[in-house]
Amino acid sequence: MVPKKTLKLIKSLQLKKYRYQEKLFLVEGAKSIVELLDSSLRVRTLISTSVFINQHISFIQRYSPELEIYQAEESAISSISSFKNNNAGIAVVEMPALQVPSALVGYALVLDNIRDPGNLGTIIRIADWYGISTIICSPETTDEFHPKVISASMGSFLRVVIYRTELTSYLQKAKLPIYGTLVNQGTSVHDLDFAPQGLILLGNESEGISELVKGYITNAVCIPQFGNAESLNVSIAAAVICDNMKRNATHRRVAS
Amino acid sequence: MVPKKTLKLIKSLQLKKYRYQEKLFLVEGAKSIVELLDSSLRVRTLISTSVFINQHISFIQRYSPELEIYQAEESAISSISSFKNNNAGIAVVEMPALQVPSALVGYALVLDNIRDPGNLGTIIRIADWYGISTIICSPETTDEFHPKVISASMGSFLRVVIYRTELTSYLQKAKLPIYGTLVNQGTSVHDLDFAPQGLILLGNESEGISELVKGYITNAVCIPQFGNAESLNVSIAAAVICDNMKRNATHRRVAS
Repeated sequence: MVPKKTLKLIKSLQLKKYRYQEKLFLVEGAKSIVELLDSSLRVRTLISTSVFINQHISFIQRYSPELEIYQAEESAISSISSFKNNNAGIAVVEMPALQVPSALVGYALVLDNIRDPGNLGTIIRIADWYGISTIICSPETTDEFHPKVISASMGSFLRVVIYRTELTSYLQKAKLPIYGTLVNQGTSVHDLDFAPQGLILLGNESEGISELVKGYITNAVCIPQFGNAESLNVSIAAAVICDNMKRNATHRRVAS
Repeated sequence: MVPKKTLKLIKSLQLKKYRYQEKLFLVEGAKSIVELLDSSLRVRTLISTSVFINQHISFIQRYSPELEIYQAEESAISSISSFKNNNAGIAVVEMPALQVPSALVGYALVLDNIRDPGNLGTIIRIADWYGISTIICSPETTDEFHPKVISASMGSFLRVVIYRTELTSYLQKAKLPIYGTLVNQGTSVHDLDFAPQGLILLGNESEGISELVKGYITNAVCIPQFGNAESLNVSIAAAVICDNMKRNATHRRVAS
């Protein structure tokens, strides 16, 4: 039986206020939990079906003697999960304490007020695919510990480190090329020669990059448009820019 | 006052069964409705706020004398809308009668069992951005008239024509290069020389391209991976492939 206190805690962690009060967040579903138990994050509680526990027993035992494990039925797990059907489990995880890094390796994404959790999760997954391990978020960007962000990232939240800071002071000190996406302005990503290191700045879903932050762009870039759609979703734009940046870097290496 | 019969019809059109029974679908929100009234689709009914009607009166008057227009409060519109907040209106639109084209101009996307309405809508928007005006869907692909598809396409459903047919017989007769996306298999999209005309085949969110359809791929393509994410979302993959195809076509034109 899962103690009532634990159930109450899990329900409360669906809300940002309680996540930051407790410094805890939830990870749900088989794939994410398996990757979580293989990561350096501290898992405090795991509520799981007997099938999932038996399937991953060696993994779970290796993890930590301090981990509280509760067995529950699939229906009971789904009832406290943010997934409609959760046939694996829910883990309660400690938020890591992070300091914004003063130096970067390669590229980082800088997110100026991304509001949709699905977009943020998808951007984390894209960063992970393209080998970008750092994302810097403005304070207003949606919480990276939101259950929908964690789920949309498909496990990539474990490999991409997300920092949160005031963008203007961060960009001022960055001393790196800052590639900013502006609709129909700047150099086409198809023609741009990306520097070996830099920041890719992405703006809010409806407003784009905010006025204050825009001033720090050193290289305005655009994604060439061939048809009539007015814009691309921000996660789509992120993918196209990362793909062109990596393509450019690879082809430069081959040429030299 | 909106007649009860109309309200009931609108509610029923949230469901696929009634959409196909009535051969009608819904278009919601200001941006989509404005573009709709400027398109060749036949709008039967428009329920709208007085603000929206006044703002677009010339547009609406130009449209058709047969259009039934009802004025309603924002709260009343939101209560029958699939949007949480709909501050503009809902239109009831006749489904166009379409025959799968025997010939194509340029590229088309072929969707093998895309299930998520958000993904389908995003793919329609991407096609529109990259100037691809034809999408061929397998019969199992989610309904293109689903309110979430219409909304995620951001008006692009008006410019991209969507056909539905058995993919195996369609691909068999296609006589075009068929680019199929397979994870970590085939030629990198960064190195591929795309033909001037062709089909880009995209598979289901979790299963990928189905076994029966896979056999028709003439050019297996992959998106190079630089980090550790296992896969990319299908709409992200669609965007990256379209971007590389267009980049390739443009650079070929410049080079020749």
